[in-house]
Amino acid sequence: MAKHGGFGWIGLYRPTDAELDVLAAEFDLHPLAIEDARKGHQRAKLERYGDTLFVVLRPARYLDDVEEVEFGELHLFVGPHFAITIRRAESPNLARVRRRLEAHPELLAKGPEAVLYAVLDEVVDEYSPVDAGLENDIDEIEEQLFSGDPQVTRRIYDLASEVMEFQRATRPLVGMFDALERGFEKYAVDLELQRYLRDVKDHVIRIVERGESFRQLLQNALQVHATLVTQRQNEEMKRLGETTLSQSEQSKKIASWAAIIFAPTLIAGIYGMNFDFMPELGWVAGYPFALALMTAFATSLYVIFKRRNWL
Amino acid sequence: MAKHGGFGWIGLYRPTDAELDVLAAEFDLHPLAIEDARKGHQRAKLERYGDTLFVVLRPARYLDDVEEVEFGELHLFVGPHFAITIRRAESPNLARVRRRLEAHPELLAKGPEAVLYAVLDEVVDEYSPVDAGLENDIDEIEEQLFSGDPQVTRRIYDLASEVMEFQRATRPLVGMFDALERGFEKYAVDLELQRYLRDVKDHVIRIVERGESFRQLLQNALQVHATLVTQRQNEEMKRLGETTLSQSEQSKKIASWAAIIFAPTLIAGIYGMNFDFMPELGWVAGYPFALALMTAFATSLYVIFKRRNWL
Amino acid sequence: MAKHGGFGWIGLYRPTDAELDVLAAEFDLHPLAIEDARKGHQRAKLERYGDTLFVVLRPARYLDDVEEVEFGELHLFVGPHFAITIRRAESPNLARVRRRLEAHPELLAKGPEAVLYAVLDEVVDEYSPVDAGLENDIDEIEEQLFSGDPQVTRRIYDLASEVMEFQRATRPLVGMFDALERGFEKYAVDLELQRYLRDVKDHVIRIVERGESFRQLLQNALQVHATLVTQRQNEEMKRLGETTLSQSEQSKKIASWAAIIFAPTLIAGIYGMNFDFMPELGWVAGYPFALALMTAFATSLYVIFKRRNWL
Amino acid sequence: MAKHGGFGWIGLYRPTDAELDVLAAEFDLHPLAIEDARKGHQRAKLERYGDTLFVVLRPARYLDDVEEVEFGELHLFVGPHFAITIRRAESPNLARVRRRLEAHPELLAKGPEAVLYAVLDEVVDEYSPVDAGLENDIDEIEEQLFSGDPQVTRRIYDLASEVMEFQRATRPLVGMFDALERGFEKYAVDLELQRYLRDVKDHVIRIVERGESFRQLLQNALQVHATLVTQRQNEEMKRLGETTLSQSEQSKKIASWAAIIFAPTLIAGIYGMNFDFMPELGWVAGYPFALALMTAFATSLYVIFKRRNWL
Amino acid sequence: MAKHGGFGWIGLYRPTDAELDVLAAEFDLHPLAIEDARKGHQRAKLERYGDTLFVVLRPARYLDDVEEVEFGELHLFVGPHFAITIRRAESPNLARVRRRLEAHPELLAKGPEAVLYAVLDEVVDEYSPVDAGLENDIDEIEEQLFSGDPQVTRRIYDLASEVMEFQRATRPLVGMFDALERGFEKYAVDLELQRYLRDVKDHVIRIVERGESFRQLLQNALQVHATLVTQRQNEEMKRLGETTLSQSEQSKKIASWAAIIFAPTLIAGIYGMNFDFMPELGWVAGYPFALALMTAFATSLYVIFKRRNWL
Ligand SMILES: [Mg+2]
Ligand SMILES: [Mg+2]
Ligand SMILES: [Mg+2]
Ligand SMILES: [Mg+2]
Ligand SMILES: [Mg+2]
Ligand SMILES: [Mg+2]
Ligand SMILES: [Mg+2]
Ligand SMILES: [Mg+2]
Ligand SMILES: [Mg+2]
Ligand SMILES: [Mg+2]
Ligand SMILES: [Mg+2]
Ligand SMILES: [Mg+2]
Ligand SMILES: [Mg+2]
Ligand SMILES: [Mg+2]
Ligand SMILES: [Mg+2]
Ligand SMILES: [Mg+2]
Ligand SMILES: [Mg+2]
Ligand SMILES: [Mg+2]
Ligand SMILES: [Mg+2]
Ligand SMILES: [Mg+2]
Ligand SMILES: [Mg+2]
Ligand SMILES: [Mg+2]
Ligand SMILES: [Mg+2]
Ligand SMILES: [Mg+2]
Ligand SMILES: [Mg+2]
Ligand SMILES: [Mg+2]
Ligand SMILES: [Mg+2]
Ligand SMILES: [Mg+2]
Ligand SMILES: [Mg+2]
Ligand SMILES: [Mg+2]
Ligand SMILES: [Mg+2]
Repeated sequence: MAKHGGFGWIGLYRPTDAELDVLAAEFDLHPLAIEDARKGHQRAKLERYGDTLFVVLRPARYLDDVEEVEFGELHLFVGPHFAITIRRAESPNLARVRRRLEAHPELLAKGPEAVLYAVLDEVVDEYSPVDAGLENDIDEIEEQLFSGDPQVTRRIYDLASEVMEFQRATRPLVGMFDALERGFEKYAVDLELQRYLRDVKDHVIRIVERGESFRQLLQNALQVHATLVTQRQNEEMKRLGETTLSQSEQSKKIASWAAIIFAPTLIAGIYGMNFDFMPELGWVAGYPFALALMTAFATSLYVIFKRRNWL
Repeated sequence: MAKHGGFGWIGLYRPTDAELDVLAAEFDLHPLAIEDARKGHQRAKLERYGDTLFVVLRPARYLDDVEEVEFGELHLFVGPHFAITIRRAESPNLARVRRRLEAHPELLAKGPEAVLYAVLDEVVDEYSPVDAGLENDIDEIEEQLFSGDPQVTRRIYDLASEVMEFQRATRPLVGMFDALERGFEKYAVDLELQRYLRDVKDHVIRIVERGESFRQLLQNALQVHATLVTQRQNEEMKRLGETTLSQSEQSKKIASWAAIIFAPTLIAGIYGMNFDFMPELGWVAGYPFALALMTAFATSLYVIFKRRNWL
Repeated sequence: MAKHGGFGWIGLYRPTDAELDVLAAEFDLHPLAIEDARKGHQRAKLERYGDTLFVVLRPARYLDDVEEVEFGELHLFVGPHFAITIRRAESPNLARVRRRLEAHPELLAKGPEAVLYAVLDEVVDEYSPVDAGLENDIDEIEEQLFSGDPQVTRRIYDLASEVMEFQRATRPLVGMFDALERGFEKYAVDLELQRYLRDVKDHVIRIVERGESFRQLLQNALQVHATLVTQRQNEEMKRLGETTLSQSEQSKKIASWAAIIFAPTLIAGIYGMNFDFMPELGWVAGYPFALALMTAFATSLYVIFKRRNWL
Repeated sequence: MAKHGGFGWIGLYRPTDAELDVLAAEFDLHPLAIEDARKGHQRAKLERYGDTLFVVLRPARYLDDVEEVEFGELHLFVGPHFAITIRRAESPNLARVRRRLEAHPELLAKGPEAVLYAVLDEVVDEYSPVDAGLENDIDEIEEQLFSGDPQVTRRIYDLASEVMEFQRATRPLVGMFDALERGFEKYAVDLELQRYLRDVKDHVIRIVERGESFRQLLQNALQVHATLVTQRQNEEMKRLGETTLSQSEQSKKIASWAAIIFAPTLIAGIYGMNFDFMPELGWVAGYPFALALMTAFATSLYVIFKRRNWL
Repeated sequence: MAKHGGFGWIGLYRPTDAELDVLAAEFDLHPLAIEDARKGHQRAKLERYGDTLFVVLRPARYLDDVEEVEFGELHLFVGPHFAITIRRAESPNLARVRRRLEAHPELLAKGPEAVLYAVLDEVVDEYSPVDAGLENDIDEIEEQLFSGDPQVTRRIYDLASEVMEFQRATRPLVGMFDALERGFEKYAVDLELQRYLRDVKDHVIRIVERGESFRQLLQNALQVHATLVTQRQNEEMKRLGETTLSQSEQSKKIASWAAIIFAPTLIAGIYGMNFDFMPELGWVAGYPFALALMTAFATSLYVIFKRRNWL
């Protein structure tokens, strides 16, 4: 336990149930608060048990490689002469909070709300990289979207889930600050401290508003994506149409040429018949006549097919 | 009727109308409350009739095999010296509530609101498995969604209906707790009990917020699903295009080969004609000449078709 | 005019302008209220003109055969010693309201708000069958949706319009009850009557919340329907692809077989030529040799086509 | 300037800057109000400058031929002894307002708010035809939608824009009436006048609620339209599939018949060969034998093709 | 530093940290405000530190060529005898604000809120061109949308992002004006100044409401666009169907004609056989008989094909 001018600071990391029981007994902590600290999975909240404040916060880190927001959970008890922090994840950086309070004894002198302020400021400041990471990935998604990458569907869906979870973690803080403000007079909170708290509240509102606009951007991206997929379908269909057309044009040409080549065979067949009485066979010019007939026949077909655009 | 230090507890399961009438007469219960208890299908609510509280709650169970939320309805009368519970389904576990109150006589001593607290805590705690079951099925749906299973449409639709019904059951509780809080001063509710009630309220808000995010996730899933279906259509269309192209390529080749094989027949037909005057027939080299002509004709066609990419 | 212990009840059905004028003069009704009653097409509202209450209500019936909600309009004046109801449709069942008030003189003794309560209770109770009819049709729509009936588009659209109109009729009642509650103290409304009014308010809220969930269900149904239509398109496209493939497979086979049958004709043509010098013609084995050549040619083609999967 | 019992009414239509300056000087109008009146493009609002009310209203007309809502802008100054109206469009019908006030001096006696009431009533009454025109066009759109007219896309989009603009014009009026109500006590507004103003407020709320439902109907229509377009695509695709199938069936038949006709030619070719040793040629029954062979060959093919469903 | 009758005005453009420190020391500015001014990226807000007002504003310019809203950030300190403005972008036009205040010493005499008013009025007036630019581009988009330009997808998406950012910048101003109004009494703000501030607030609300309607218009445009893309797909598909039909009609005709030409060859082949006993060969009319047979065969096929619509 660290002491700073009559003020004790206890920082616990993943405490056992027994440690929590000892703590509860020594500092007379409320059983409901201890139960919350033990069970976890709470939303951010602020409770007053006598002159002890109990606060639950949801610090967050952005894991950019998997595009996930990782949430910790911080339980904070602040009494007139002590502060107890219980963490289960590495964030937030409470060492920095402590150094700050040690460096500013005049802040610590303002009472429990000052400690609360310092922790809130750190937690909220640590939301900024999350916010920046989400924005960055949304920018990437926009590029990916219009470049036609089909993987973007899942990426949008997953990032939207993360944004929603981040909003669920940060939005309750606004209500918490409102509650704090409503108690400024009742608990005679120092004017200067009020300003510090409002400064953090301001930061939280900015984070929440940006979270909301991220959600809307991803919603738009989903809808735009659906349209782009259909647009790509149109192009696919156009190409299919062109292919089909070109293929059948060629088939027609082959068939037409086959018919043209074939036509003279009919003449040849006729003059290959073995009838006894076929005057043309005896003609001196019979053979050239037949060749001429063949040529004429083929040429006629060629002209007809050409006119009908089959060739 | 069970008595605990001057406090009576009556638990009814599917009571008859006559039983309700007896009860109403003995405990002077308000006719409107009795009518609600008799007819059921109420939303969660809290009414004060003199010093008797009347509360309607909507306990829930998750039937994971059919992915449905099953709702019960609990009617609770709490007076200074008695508590009456009326159930029509098996949940919530009121035996546990009673054991808890028996084990904590100091809680019971805090008056009717303490009984109310204990019942509310149980009902709200029993919402947790519903919440977990819904989350689990949404996770499954996400996997199913991106794996391309067409059955997912109905599953999303049905689960969204269940989530909406669950929200309809849980959201009114927040207003009920707000009403309770507004009455804390008027009804001189014990400070400790206020804290217990706020603890349950906190749990309810968490359930409600998660329900809302489930609704949004399923909404996103519906939209993503539509896009994926179209995306799959694009692939279908691409495959159709490729099949069509490959088929017509082959057809062209067969036709081209048929034409090539056929072309020499024309020459054969010509020299099979029976004209008396056909000089080539008398040539010694007539036959090889004809064969050469045939080969030349076929080869020319082959070259032409090859050049036009018909072969 | 019916009198019950110093209290007069006048029920008008589609009154003429003259009748309304007589009424206004006799009971000193406010011109604005009379104008509203004359013109109709009002939203539900409550006005106090001195000690006379003026209420507009929108009773509803569900016409299940055409799936439409039919709205009536009820204008109600309640003074210390009279109640005037003006209807233009057959609902609500005011006879029942009157019988109820006659049977409960103690209720009537509580003043104008008691009459208002009885009418409100009837109107709101008559919303239940509408609510049930809408739910039933939504259930039918869900089945129709997934069974692939294209008529469901219009049915969803039309029912959503009806639900929206029903919401427009019922939502203002919540505000009306809020206004009544704000006046409980000022107008010294009997405590028991307050409870009765809250009971009806509870029913209204349930109706409004269910209306909202109907709207969302139909919204989801619309989106799901769009997806199902595209899904059916995929199946159509798949079938089209399979048909196209199967057809072109058969065409290829026919063409291949024609080419195979055709190939020997070339050999026959060659040995049908009339050249004087064709050694094979004089061979004893010439004929079998030609037949063997034909078979070999056809077989080669068969093998080639088989290998290329054209057969 | 028209005087009615010590009350002056000035109606200006598109005044010049100079006219406005003269007016401002004579009636001591506030520069901000004069600037608003000069520049226009204001939202509806109410300001009090001393005992002068300044009101901006947005009258509207429906141009049914182009399906557009045309907005005017009315600036109204009402002091204890004067009313000044400034219009730039022809609506609203201020002559009617003036006649009404002249006919009811008791109304005018209630002070500036009475003039405000009369103008508001006229402006809001003139919203009714807009509301009716929009509803009528939405009904037309519904018919057009399900009749499959592709022009409906733009019509829905454009009408939705008009509805949104109409909502932007009418919604601020609700806030304006709320502000007026909050001032009823402070400015000792006559009770009767309060009722008149509430009557208009009621009308405004009805207009606003209907506007909102128009917006939702058009939103639904947009989504339904997208589905219908895809549904029509399915039918197109089905028809394309049927056409393709029928065409390829016919092609197969032609090819099959050609092959059947062609097959006997092979036999003819064989017996047309000129080999010296071909025993069948010397048979008496050779010729019928060949014809039988041809018939058998063709028939076999016919049977085979028939079995394979190629014919 | 510029002095106007005991009032100093300091305008800084991109100050260094050292300059800010000097300023903070001289005017006793609050460290939190100085930190905000140093770090930037704040939302619009108003803080009171003693008798000094600290205001953050987000001026905007519309870059029409790239269709982007460019945001500046203005930090303003106003004390009883000084105003300090810190800018990082060129807008807003603070020179105009200063000239206005110099020209109206009576305004300056109303205290710090007067300076705040003048700056707010300028910043909000500069939102008008942004608003107009956005509206203009939305009009262009509507034309582009219905003209079928596929580039419109990205344009809608990008402009919607800009509109959302503009809304995020302007919406907090409404809350700021509300806060100012709540302080009117406490800080004894001059009545005239209250009116001036309300005039600006009015302008801001107009901007915010239009921003909201821009967002909805673009949302509608996105959905309409998706429908139009599908509609175009239907046309593509119809054209594909027609092409396919026309192509296969032609193929059928070519095949049919080939079969017709081919059929007589069979007859020719038969009479080209070399059987010793073929009675027709000896007939005088054999040859014409054969030609008649050929004609009959071809004609029959022609008639059959014609009837079956293959020709
Ligand atoms: Mg807890
Ligand atoms: Mg990344
Ligand atoms: Mg900070
Ligand atoms: Mg990244
Ligand atoms: Mg996830
Ligand atoms: Mg996560
Ligand atoms: Mg009831
Ligand atoms: Mg399951
Ligand atoms: Mg619990
Ligand atoms: Mg499961
Ligand atoms: Mg269901
Ligand atoms: Mg269910
Ligand atoms: Mg499609
Ligand atoms: Mg009226
Ligand atoms: Mg039905
Ligand atoms: Mg009832
Ligand atoms: Mg039905
Ligand atoms: Mg309709
Ligand atoms: Mg209807
Ligand atoms: Mg102005
Ligand atoms: Mg029209
Ligand atoms: Mg009117
Ligand atoms: Mg019309
Ligand atoms: Mg337009
Ligand atoms: Mg317009
Ligand atoms: Mg700050
Ligand atoms: Mg531009
Ligand atoms: Mg301005
Ligand atoms: Mg532009
Ligand atoms: Mg962007
Ligand atoms: Mg930008």
